[in-house]
Order: sequence, then C-alpha cells, then structure tokens
Amino acid sequence: MTSVHGANPLRDAADRRLPRIAGPSGLVIFGVTGDLSRKKLMPAVYDLANRGLLPPGFSLVGFARREWQDEDFTQVVHDAVKEHARTPFREEVWQQLIQGMRFVQGTFDDDDAFERLRGTIEELDKAQGTGGNFAFYLSVPPSSFPVVIQQLKKHGLAEQTEGAWRRAVIEKPFGHDLKSAEQLNAIVHEVFAPDQVFRIDHYLGKETVQNILALRFANQMFEPIWNRSYVDHVQITMAEDIGIGGRAGYYDGIGAARDVIQNHLLQLMALTAMEEPASFDADALAAEKTKVLGAVRLPKDLGRGTVFAQYAAGWQGGEKAVGYLQEEGIDPQSKTDTYAAIKLGIDNRRWAGVPFYLRTGKRLGRRVTEIAVVFQRAPHSPFDTSATEELGQNAVVIRVQPDEGVTVRFGSKVPGTSMEIRDVSMDFAYGESFTESSPEAYERLILDVLLGDSNLFPRTEEVELSWKILDPIEEYWDRHGKPAQYPAGTWGPVEADEMLQRDGRSWRRP
Amino acid sequence: MTSVHGANPLRDAADRRLPRIAGPSGLVIFGVTGDLSRKKLMPAVYDLANRGLLPPGFSLVGFARREWQDEDFTQVVHDAVKEHARTPFREEVWQQLIQGMRFVQGTFDDDDAFERLRGTIEELDKAQGTGGNFAFYLSVPPSSFPVVIQQLKKHGLAEQTEGAWRRAVIEKPFGHDLKSAEQLNAIVHEVFAPDQVFRIDHYLGKETVQNILALRFANQMFEPIWNRSYVDHVQITMAEDIGIGGRAGYYDGIGAARDVIQNHLLQLMALTAMEEPASFDADALAAEKTKVLGAVRLPKDLGRGTVFAQYAAGWQGGEKAVGYLQEEGIDPQSKTDTYAAIKLGIDNRRWAGVPFYLRTGKRLGRRVTEIAVVFQRAPHSPFDTSATEELGQNAVVIRVQPDEGVTVRFGSKVPGTSMEIRDVSMDFAYGESFTESSPEAYERLILDVLLGDSNLFPRTEEVELSWKILDPIEEYWDRHGKPAQYPAGTWGPVEADEMLQRDGRSWRRP
Repeated sequence: MTSVHGANPLRDAADRRLPRIAGPSGLVIFGVTGDLSRKKLMPAVYDLANRGLLPPGFSLVGFARREWQDEDFTQVVHDAVKEHARTPFREEVWQQLIQGMRFVQGTFDDDDAFERLRGTIEELDKAQGTGGNFAFYLSVPPSSFPVVIQQLKKHGLAEQTEGAWRRAVIEKPFGHDLKSAEQLNAIVHEVFAPDQVFRIDHYLGKETVQNILALRFANQMFEPIWNRSYVDHVQITMAEDIGIGGRAGYYDGIGAARDVIQNHLLQLMALTAMEEPASFDADALAAEKTKVLGAVRLPKDLGRGTVFAQYAAGWQGGEKAVGYLQEEGIDPQSKTDTYAAIKLGIDNRRWAGVPFYLRTGKRLGRRVTEIAVVFQRAPHSPFDTSATEELGQNAVVIRVQPDEGVTVRFGSKVPGTSMEIRDVSMDFAYGESFTESSPEAYERLILDVLLGDSNLFPRTEEVELSWKILDPIEEYWDRHGKPAQYPAGTWGPVEADEMLQRDGRSWRRP
Repeated sequence: MTSVHGANPLRDAADRRLPRIAGPSGLVIFGVTGDLSRKKLMPAVYDLANRGLLPPGFSLVGFARREWQDEDFTQVVHDAVKEHARTPFREEVWQQLIQGMRFVQGTFDDDDAFERLRGTIEELDKAQGTGGNFAFYLSVPPSSFPVVIQQLKKHGLAEQTEGAWRRAVIEKPFGHDLKSAEQLNAIVHEVFAPDQVFRIDHYLGKETVQNILALRFANQMFEPIWNRSYVDHVQITMAEDIGIGGRAGYYDGIGAARDVIQNHLLQLMALTAMEEPASFDADALAAEKTKVLGAVRLPKDLGRGTVFAQYAAGWQGGEKAVGYLQEEGIDPQSKTDTYAAIKLGIDNRRWAGVPFYLRTGKRLGRRVTEIAVVFQRAPHSPFDTSATEELGQNAVVIRVQPDEGVTVRFGSKVPGTSMEIRDVSMDFAYGESFTESSPEAYERLILDVLLGDSNLFPRTEEVELSWKILDPIEEYWDRHGKPAQYPAGTWGPVEADEMLQRDGRSWRRP
C-alpha cells in the first residue's frame, strides 16, 4: 500500500499499512522545563519527526516562567533529544524541526504572556503553515489546571474556528476523589468540548495494552474461554521496585490506590473485561469500557476485600532501603498507602462471580506490570490424582512491562513412563518476534492527539466512574485503623496474602 | 510417595510418582537377529533395567534360526546396548541382566525348538523367579505370524495357569486390508484372549502422543474450543525425507496409506478427536477411539477427496535422489503410493463439517510428524481490513517429532503506531522445559506389556475399523488411473495442493 500522503522517505517501515501522518499542526507545552517534558515529551516529538509522522511545518512551543530565548529552548530540546530519544539523531530532521520551535516566557496568570502565545501561534500559522491547529499540553501541577484553562479561554486560544482545531492534553491525577474530579471536569468542559480533551494515561499508549485488543478480538482462541464459565479469577499487578524517590510532596496524601489503581489498573481491567466493541472508534471503545466500570461491585466487607499498607525498612537490590515513614519529606504519622490490593467483582453476565484482584505497590520484589487471566481447573480429570498433584491452573498472562509479551501456562506430561502432569509455559516476546522496536507510549499518544484519535484516552465518565469505585475504599481506609506493613523488597503485606488465601487462591510471583 | 515395591536406588527420578515397576517376568523375542531387535528392543530392555523398572530376575530369551550359543546372544545384546541404548552403560546393571539371558535355536516350524523354549522358560522360572510370566514378541514377517502363534499354542506356551500370564506382542502390519486383518485377528484370538494381545504402534509410545491426552484433558483452555464451533479443520502430517531404502520387498504393493495412515495417522486422529474417556484405563480409552473411527465418513468423491502419488527423481539434502520406479527392486510398472493424502469427516456432534486432512509421504521436504488443529477466523473483526491482511488462522500444533512439543499460533499487534496484526508463535519444547529426557517409545511400550497396561495399544476393533476406512480408498486407487508424481525433496504433488485449494485451504509447510 502506498501512503495517501505520498511517499515519505522518513516513514517508519512498521507503519506502512496505515501511515497515520499528522496533518499541519503544532504543540504547546505548559511546564516545559519539567522532568516529564525533557524526558518524555521532547524526545517523543523528535522520534515522531524522525519517523516521518509529523507534518513538515510542525511547530513546538514551550511556555514557562524561565527567562529563556528561543535559542535556549532549542538547546534544551536538543540536549533532551540527544539523551532520551529512541531513534538515532539525524541532523536533517533536527534542522527541519527547529524551524518551528518557539519559547514564550511567562507565568500562568500573566495575560501578556498568553497574548504573546497567541501571537506566536499566528506567526507560526503563517511561517510554518500550522493552519491554526494546536494542542495544549498541560504538563503542570493539578492546582494550575484551572488557571491555564481559563487563560486559554480568555485569550481565545481554545476556540476552534474555520476548520482549525484546538485540543487540551491533561496529565493525571484527574482529581483525587470523585468530587474533585467532577470539579476539574467542569472547569475543563466549560472551555473544551469532550472531543477536544485528551487525558494521558501513558499505560494505554504501551504496545501490549493495545495488544489486549488484538489478542482478544483478532483471534478465535481466547474469546470463547474469556468468561465466567472458564475463568477462575483475574490478577492485575503493577509492582514498582523503587520507593517514592523525590516525589514525597506529590505522593503523601495521594497513595498507591489513587496514583495507580484509579487510572492504570482500572483501565487495564476495563480492557480485559469489556465486551467486543462494534468498532475501535473512540466512542465505541469508551462505551464498552464505561459499561465495565459501571458494573464494578465493591467487596461487601471492605476490611476483608481490600488491603492498604506501607513499606517498612528492608533490603532492595542488595541495598538497605528506609521505610516510607522515614523517607525525607514524609509526615511520620502519615497513613498514605504505598501498597494497595483490592478485590472487585463485575456484575454482568460474562463476569458474575469472577473476582478481579488488583494490586500495586512501591518497593516490591521487582518492577513488573501484568494481567493474569487464571482459568478454572478442568471440571473433571480422567487422570490419577497423583498424576496432577503438581498441576496448577491454566493462565494467559499479558506482560505489559518489562519484557512485553504473552505467556500461556498449561499442563503437560512430564517425560517418563508414568503419567505425571506439570505446568509448563510458552512465551511470546515482542522483542524476539518483531524486528520493529516499540514506539514509546508518549510517541503514540502525542501522535494520536495531533490526529484527533482519542480511543486510547480515558473519558470524563470513565474517570468519574473510577473515582466512584475508589472513594468508598479510601473513606474506609481513612476511618479504619492503620496501614499494614511490609518490608521493602518483598511482595507486600501478609494481609494481602491472607486476603487471597481466604478465597483459596494465591498471588502470582511474577 | 514411596514405591509400593520398596525403595530402588536405580529408579528414574521422573518416575517418582507412580513407579510402575514390572513384576517378575521375562520376554521372548522371535526374530531376535533382525534390525528392530538390535536397534530398538534390546536397547529398550537395557534402558528399562538401568532405570530400575524391571524386576531383579527379569529374563530375555532370543529365538532364531542362527547357530548361536547363549554367549553369542549375550554378546549381540551387549553390542546393541552399547551402540543404541539411551542411558549410560553400567556394568552392575549389565551383570544382573545377563543372568537371565538365554538363546533358543530353531526355525518356527521346529517342534523340538519350541519344546526347548518351554524348557528354558521353566528353567528361568526356577533360576530367575520369573513366575511363569512371559511375553512373546513377534518381531517376524507377517507371513510367519500364523505358524509362531500356532506353535505357541501347540506347546502350551500361550496358556495362562496358576496366576501366571502369557502375552503376545505383534508388530505392524496388522494385515493389508480388512479381510486379511480379520483373518490374522482370527488366528491370534484363537490362541490369545483380547487382553493378552499387544499390537505395537510405536507412535503411540511417543511422549507427545500421550501428551495429547494431557494437553486436552488436564487443561481447561483447549477443550472448550476443541469442536466444530471453533475448529476450521485439522491437518495430520507424517512426512519422511528418506526414500524406501532397503525395504523395496516390503514396501512395494503396500504403500504409504497402508504403511502409515491405516495405523499411525488414524490413531493420532482418534486421539485428537475423541471424547474425554471416563478414565484412562484401556477399555475406556479404546471405547472412545473406536467411536471416532466408527464415525469416520469418506469423501463422497474419492477422486477429489484423496490423492496418491509416487516420488519422481529430484534433489534431497543436496543430493540427487532417484524416482520410486527407479529404486532397486521396484517393479517399473508399480502403482504403489509413496505419498497419500486423504480428507475425512467425522460424523458426530463435535466434528460434523470439520475436515480432517491426513497426509504422509516419503522423500518430502523434511522429517516431521505433527497434528495441527486450525481454528476458524474470528467471527467478526472490529479492526480495519488492512490491519488484519497478514493475519492467518489460530492454530494449536502438537509436534510429535522431531523437536517434540506444542506450538500455538495467534495474531498479535505489530509494534508501531498503527494497528497491524500479524501471526506470531509461542512454543513449548519438551527438550527445553524438562530436564528429564524422554524414554524411547519401545521402552514405554515394553514396560506396558510387562505391566499388562494395554491402553497405548490399538485393539482388534480399531485395526479393523481402520481398514474399513482405507479399503474403499485403496480399491478406488486400484481401479482409477495412475499415481500422481512429485519430485523428491518437495512437499508432494500439486494434486494434493489443489485438493485443499478447492476447500479454500492450504497445507502447512511444517
């Protein structure tokens, strides 16, 4: 197939089918001096340009308080790209890219600065042919969301006119409970229509998350057994080996459940559990995810169906690690969860009675994110009991990170003259099976924003439903007792193990 | 678990669960000077002894025309073991084993020789404690079956008395059509009861064939999709890269279908297609296999649903290979098939409408035996057509030889920012997943004979049903035209490719 946009020598071979090249457009980053911007956004913009997926006149505008000139900004982008880009540095790509780089100096309440931003955009429309199409990336603390959004409105930057689009990109946290999320959504939607808003959950930009869709719906093998008749339970894990690092200010009072379960894990759960959408257009996909989130049932007894905990001192990677309460900047009385495990049900025909166990934590055994669909034992075994003593349950494990891929665990006969059946695994690893390397999540998501393709971005309703699930749990934790403890470097508190033991199950050690 | 037979230091670790050690017994081999005996049977006996699975007084009696003494026989066994045994040679095992080795010289019509054999058995019962339990292995041409069996009867060797068992082991071919098979069975069963007769199909002793049972019935993932609702078709292939070698005399007039499809492939088909047996006891298993074979439906038009062919001259492994008709000892007018492909249906609720394609041939691309269960495409694809252009059908492939294991083929997203789905595979290889090495098929089967465990041995009814399937096909081939041709080293005749093309399918290139 040839590209509808014509031949482009910089085009990525992996994209030959549907080139998905962004049309004339630009990106404005608020908070451009921050970590996220340097480590992820700038390199992603370069990688997209290098792969030929950005239009020739693509423009990148930085907005920050820092007293920079365009040249300073360009230099910072240059260094960030050299250090963090995925694809090789090519001078001709870079030279083309810097034609559209601008810096606007100002604070968020500075009307002059937003007027200068407007002028810059108009200038770029003429000089670079961006056609008035701009996305505003709010890489700023949540407290600054309202002011930036109001300013965009006030200075006419949010208005879509004469076929030109304007879009807002928002990073999590999308509030810290249902009420604050609703307030935030109200502010955002006063200015931007739903289809103008892109909430970034970078997990959804990862390859294997999109591969959940391919695995489930492009194949005939998995969907027939993907239901309560065959599935015993599902475990969704996001484990980090690091502590809170320098994020004490952000993390304390938020905790693991708000930071990870509310967005990432509930989204992974929705993708795992949803019905087949009629198509993959954003509305159809969001409708199915919303149905799942709306059908979630909390455990009757939140004390037995949830666990929250804090890491205590321990050992990690051969080094001593301090406990959470000893971390710099943390209130020694803090009850913030660094580990959370929740058992959820989904009240629909497909999943009734099948528990979904979600867990996340910092300072766990190793860094891993995975979805494990664990099947029931065979309803009848014609084998001797002794033959299947060491046989576990079948499982399909979608490995999200690291080492993205799929593992299937099943029982196989042990070589020998007697019938003994033991678990074996077969693996499919992205890295080994494809020569193409996976784009970074931010590459994918920024390109989607520029293309207006919103199907990897959670919507207002999904965000609010997720808070509806989490709020009662957070309230319960608030009212009841103290967080459990687990030594850094282990797989969480014994209370979490006991939670599954009560159900006759156990956590995977991924 | 500890062995019911007590601790045995020579016991194989792989067998710790159910030691399955043979009780007091001996084995008599007719045709002991042949290839099969030296390459397979003698080494298998030694390997079993070495693994501690034979009783201390186990005895091995050779019967042949050759003018040997016991010492000559022992020397031949010694050399065969040194050359062909799977496990290391251990002097102490060997010294114990030769205590029970005897040779009886004679022809099959020699009454004195059979009397000497009876004396030898009685002597061994006293000296070695074999308890009168003997298996007679007929490693002889089919034409000699009747005389050996009659002699066993005449000299009282087939009689089971005072709790002592007698068993007959028969190698294929079990006749060359239904009529001759019925005649052979009549002769055998005049002397031996059904549970005394063990028909060797060494494919059924292979690990992965038994693993079909484990894969299907110990797991929960496969059985729900193992039926006409999800399976598109099944391909069972046994390909050989060699020609007829020195077997012209045996092979011509028999051909590929009788040599391989009648026994191996129909048995593999029965194991793949059968319902779950109530248990794995031999009767229950045979009942299920028999049901499948009895439900087989031939193609309406045998000209379109079967193909037979002969290899023509070609290249194999970088060397020129002559055509079948040019092989030494082959009638240049021969119509014998060296390749056969057959499309069968199974008329039952599970498989109605699902074709089973069986093929076998000599001088094909490479040596491989596999069962490929190929699934339908997903009934609906929410993806763009272009996204799934290169997507094939899901398949579970049971690799029987070489490189035994299981492969699952499914569709996965290609890394990149567009949605493109391509086939990937995951593998489970016996060799990589278990430290235990697989016993040879003959080890397994001889041990089963000594234990009286007949569930890996096809029964009278199965053999006769298989001929019932094959006879009309052979007759059709006999009446109609000439075999098709394929160059040595290729994957068979174009007629076989066309047979699948007419169904909108194609053969796997394994």
